[in-house]
Amino acid sequence: MISVEIIAIGSELLRGIVLDTNTNWLCKQITGLGGQVKRVTIVPDELKMIAEALKSALRAKRDVIITSGGLGPTQDDMTLQAVAYALKLKIVLNEDAHKMIAQRYADLAKAGRVTDAALTASRQKMALLPQGAIPLANRVGTAPGAYLEHKSSKIICLPGVPAELKDIFQNSLPPFLKNIFSEGFYLEKDLIVQLNDESILAPILKELNARWPKVYIKSRPKGFAEGLKIIITFSLAGSKDEVQKVLNGATEDLKKRLKQENIPVENA
Amino acid sequence: MISVEIIAIGSELLRGIVLDTNTNWLCKQITGLGGQVKRVTIVPDELKMIAEALKSALRAKRDVIITSGGLGPTQDDMTLQAVAYALKLKIVLNEDAHKMIAQRYADLAKAGRVTDAALTASRQKMALLPQGAIPLANRVGTAPGAYLEHKSSKIICLPGVPAELKDIFQNSLPPFLKNIFSEGFYLEKDLIVQLNDESILAPILKELNARWPKVYIKSRPKGFAEGLKIIITFSLAGSKDEVQKVLNGATEDLKKRLKQENIPVENA
Repeated sequence: MISVEIIAIGSELLRGIVLDTNTNWLCKQITGLGGQVKRVTIVPDELKMIAEALKSALRAKRDVIITSGGLGPTQDDMTLQAVAYALKLKIVLNEDAHKMIAQRYADLAKAGRVTDAALTASRQKMALLPQGAIPLANRVGTAPGAYLEHKSSKIICLPGVPAELKDIFQNSLPPFLKNIFSEGFYLEKDLIVQLNDESILAPILKELNARWPKVYIKSRPKGFAEGLKIIITFSLAGSKDEVQKVLNGATEDLKKRLKQENIPVENA
Repeated sequence: MISVEIIAIGSELLRGIVLDTNTNWLCKQITGLGGQVKRVTIVPDELKMIAEALKSALRAKRDVIITSGGLGPTQDDMTLQAVAYALKLKIVLNEDAHKMIAQRYADLAKAGRVTDAALTASRQKMALLPQGAIPLANRVGTAPGAYLEHKSSKIICLPGVPAELKDIFQNSLPPFLKNIFSEGFYLEKDLIVQLNDESILAPILKELNARWPKVYIKSRPKGFAEGLKIIITFSLAGSKDEVQKVLNGATEDLKKRLKQENIPVENA
């Protein structure tokens, strides 16, 4: 299974000013592609902290490392400098990125959304990429993303503005993703049981886990306050036929056990 | 400044099944207490991954390490085992925790919310704490939190259900927090500017950063789609008088500079 690490960058995240919804969105996409997010790190806008997180992910030999945030025009946006620093690469003015940014500002100026299209130092900064990186077009904002490879790891740098991150992931990344996640199929099934006590479920799920070792089985309460229900999630990635067969088997097995214990299933 | 690391635990977070709102809430609390969250790690329900994240935070000598998640009755809840493993401590049945849990189930049984109050193995599991840990009462759910110290680090383990995490933080932790964050005062000010291009702001903020090195100044666009505005956040922790004086000075300074550049401030 393709292993993925996400590094979310931004001091505003660590100060609680902004809720990081990008990571959850990316985790969903990766899981849907049949990949496995192994760890997420959130670091501040500090060159060494970003570089350290990246090096830790490289040491762990993740197949894919995705960063979010820190690609903009202000001086606290330093993700690409940190990537270059960690990989001992030069930072160079990327011609393709430069063209993309010039075109974006020309379009925005034409539409009256910026006053002029001149590539100031702050705007040009967004075209400075680690040597060998490929820029990823951004149709929503101005900063392109970046794709590069290092040893066996693919590194993907995305902006932090959610609409821009999604745009690049959905529109510029697919050719790269297709190569990485070649045959992933992922399925998730939820069973909701009417039960006010997760501890009753513990031995049953333990038993089930032993019988279906490949299936991810997770229970979580919906909270005591609103009258407890428990959601049991089954999921598996693999080939389509196997995934469907195995998940059906595991959920039917659990339904049978729950019936024996007189625990009603809400969505049976 | 008190340094804090947060470790969020749960495979459901890495699969994108659940959006982690606990971390954002904790970051706000810590910042409000005058502390600084240096890094967040999200790890799956795997003993070694949890222990590794904890050891990394200990190596970085964080004053406070907060874990969320993995305290429940099911076998995939293994935070306390991982803490014990990382710190080479025994896991023992904590008498106070045992009493808390017995009392909770007695109350829940009385209220008809669980069928009986017997302390089954799954329920007792929640009273198994690393040796030397102090249990933290949970008024919302059943699993107590835990507080322990290791060298110069304070370790706080909280449940993953948001209402339970908040309850313990707000009701059981204050005596501990009061000792840790003895004189923190934190203030945040936002200026919203009507500007459709963050790159124009970059040199102005760079200048301002140089004049107010202690102040955290961060700009972030509200997105091209809905007509761009830029939020500039100023914040600082320290003594109350100094914080107020310095933040007023920095925001007034920026307002003056923005006026010179004919950039309108929305909330001036």
